[in-house]
Amino acid sequence: MARIRRFQPCSLVETKEAKGWDDRYAEKIKDLEAGNLEKHFEDGYIICLFDKGREMSSEDFAGFLEKRSLSSRTVTFVVGGFAGLADRIIKKADFLLALSRMTFSHELCRVVLLEQIYRGLTIMKGSHYAK
Amino acid sequence: MARIRRFQPCSLVETKEAKGWDDRYAEKIKDLEAGNLEKHFEDGYIICLFDKGREMSSEDFAGFLEKRSLSSRTVTFVVGGFAGLADRIIKKADFLLALSRMTFSHELCRVVLLEQIYRGLTIMKGSHYAK
Repeated sequence: MARIRRFQPCSLVETKEAKGWDDRYAEKIKDLEAGNLEKHFEDGYIICLFDKGREMSSEDFAGFLEKRSLSSRTVTFVVGGFAGLADRIIKKADFLLALSRMTFSHELCRVVLLEQIYRGLTIMKGSHYAK
Repeated sequence: MARIRRFQPCSLVETKEAKGWDDRYAEKIKDLEAGNLEKHFEDGYIICLFDKGREMSSEDFAGFLEKRSLSSRTVTFVVGGFAGLADRIIKKADFLLALSRMTFSHELCRVVLLEQIYRGLTIMKGSHYAK
């Protein structure tokens, strides 16, 4: 995060997880978590991390970020919890992004996303960043 | 690693990085590191992590691991360093695996790979594992 902030103001918001529900109630879990997410939605461009979303190379992702940076709308990346994201959140998205064809734990998803944002910004700025 | 070992014997070998070379000497770095990797190659099935390799869903990867487990050949996953893998290592591979269309740092690549191996094994065994 600190590295990303060198390039761009950004903040990480962790919303409340729906705890104490059995896995069978995935829809209920997603619904509760959607309510918590919605409180933080501004009138910005919303990108949901979604395993059936679009994949991009890091270079294409950098181009995508560059295009977004030309707009004054805040960009919000949304990562779901254990059960994933509710349909109504997916429907709100301006863009559905897949980091991989593989399913990542949501914890790992966050780490990978942050690295890609940082990598994308360094590519945009022409800096050098490791493979 | 400890979690993976519950299902399957496995070991993690870190070979020496070629340090002190400027990035311009990527080929030299890859060549030196290839020599270190080759010392550890047994007569097994070699899977190189390669960004131009084949992508799979976690379910397909589980099926792939299951198929490999029917053979007595050891499976070796090879993750390159900062500069990537030398061509001669890529050529030795029985399979080229891409975790994503995006480029991950080699440190993150290792974490993602270990999670996918663990996830694959739990899918194989019918256990439950988090999204």
